[in-house]
Amino acid sequence: MKAEVECIPCVFKQALAVSRYITDDPVRQQRALDAVMQIMEGISLDRSPAEISDKAVKTVCNLLANEDPYRESKHKHNQEVLKLYPRLKEIINKADDRLHTALQLASAGNIIDLGIVPTFDIEKTIEEVLSRGFAVDHYNQMKERLPSAKNILYIGDNAGEIVFDKLLIEELSPLPVTFAVKEGPILNDVTKEDAREVGMDKVARVISTGQQVIGVNLPEASPEFRRLFEEAEIIISKGQGNYETLDGTSDRIFFILRAKCNCVARSLGVQEGNVVLLRKSKDGSAGIS
Amino acid sequence: MKAEVECIPCVFKQALAVSRYITDDPVRQQRALDAVMQIMEGISLDRSPAEISDKAVKTVCNLLANEDPYRESKHKHNQEVLKLYPRLKEIINKADDRLHTALQLASAGNIIDLGIVPTFDIEKTIEEVLSRGFAVDHYNQMKERLPSAKNILYIGDNAGEIVFDKLLIEELSPLPVTFAVKEGPILNDVTKEDAREVGMDKVARVISTGQQVIGVNLPEASPEFRRLFEEAEIIISKGQGNYETLDGTSDRIFFILRAKCNCVARSLGVQEGNVVLLRKSKDGSAGIS
Repeated sequence: MKAEVECIPCVFKQALAVSRYITDDPVRQQRALDAVMQIMEGISLDRSPAEISDKAVKTVCNLLANEDPYRESKHKHNQEVLKLYPRLKEIINKADDRLHTALQLASAGNIIDLGIVPTFDIEKTIEEVLSRGFAVDHYNQMKERLPSAKNILYIGDNAGEIVFDKLLIEELSPLPVTFAVKEGPILNDVTKEDAREVGMDKVARVISTGQQVIGVNLPEASPEFRRLFEEAEIIISKGQGNYETLDGTSDRIFFILRAKCNCVARSLGVQEGNVVLLRKSKDGSAGIS
Repeated sequence: MKAEVECIPCVFKQALAVSRYITDDPVRQQRALDAVMQIMEGISLDRSPAEISDKAVKTVCNLLANEDPYRESKHKHNQEVLKLYPRLKEIINKADDRLHTALQLASAGNIIDLGIVPTFDIEKTIEEVLSRGFAVDHYNQMKERLPSAKNILYIGDNAGEIVFDKLLIEELSPLPVTFAVKEGPILNDVTKEDAREVGMDKVARVISTGQQVIGVNLPEASPEFRRLFEEAEIIISKGQGNYETLDGTSDRIFFILRAKCNCVARSLGVQEGNVVLLRKSKDGSAGIS
């Protein structure tokens, strides 16, 4: 999807959030925002919001000389959600439809995003998602496709959230799942280190997109990732960054995300704060089988 | 009060809101934000948030060649709240303490602010304010000072809201009140035209600050305004812009406002969304008589 003018103030908000993760010094924070102004002035909106945010985040990290400001938070979130694992497993064990519940939980995990919504309440989110369900739910389309799936590509999003992804992948077993992470740190997105920390490598093959960017820049992704992206009968894409960059690239993608801003909510045809399990047909319309 | 780094993303949000009032064309909107980036880069935060917003708003209005984008909205809000007048008067007529209720209603009216919070529900706000009351309430201090007040200066804020101000001024009768408006249009702030539209000139002497800025730039205000500011035993200051620019200038000011952002809420010592009736002593501490 394409960025809109309203992404511009939002990018400054995100850039400030990153600056604050790196330093408490308002002078350095302001210097970082000044640097972001320099790259934002006259920027082409003919690209995804994620690409613009990515530029801004990298500008801040470079200027403030910290490549991985979210390292500690990521570890903390992984450990916190690992503690929830037994309770989440129990919710699935008691569910009428294990896979559907695991998909809903995976969407609840998407609240853990330090880029756009820096504070969240994971327990409250789990309750909400399980009671309200998906605002768009293409579960039936996923179920139809699962029996013939030989390859499932699962594109991860954030640390902490990855524990929810693991629970979902356990429900997809014995289907072979490849879990894609970032090649290097960007915001609180998962890397191989995070995948190992939560034992993702025990339930899926873990590969990297070959990139250190918000979302996926498909034409420049690693050959291994691109091959899998072409071969997989089902692609599960988590989160807003992956949606922003992969929307329109394939009708085999099931997007699981929470709409964290108006711009993405409009693109999804839902309200801000809603969660979706959405497949779009090749012409971009939603849910045509 | 001084601006903080977090005012910077907020200024871009405000600038976009003004741009959208003027044009639907995203190219022109982006051009306006680009112009705001030019004035924001390296800006000194050693001034009030209102001064910075004022620069940004004027930059947008100049670039998009519209000095008064809120003219129609202001008229609409004046007319809408005039329709509520009989109901508001009835609420006051039934109140145990007419003046206190009128003060609370005046704070409810402060939700009508197209600068920071572009959408609002006035009816819901009235109910909320009357049931929750002020988060800081220096009503007793005001009551103590009223009998000896020979001059009351009432510094207005927004169109629509001015009808609530009129109701409060009616409760202050027969004390002589001077109502200060802006010399020219800035956001949806009241001018002499708005004061006439709602009949403010029937209940108070209406003067202008001599300025067309968010809040009041006291050293450069008109001699008439400055004289009244010095003479008045009680000054009632409405809204966030006036608070941001007048905080620390006098211990005779009673600020009535809703904290519409974290930065101002912190300065007031309350939560975002709270309303206050606040007097600060000369050393800046709150509510010392």
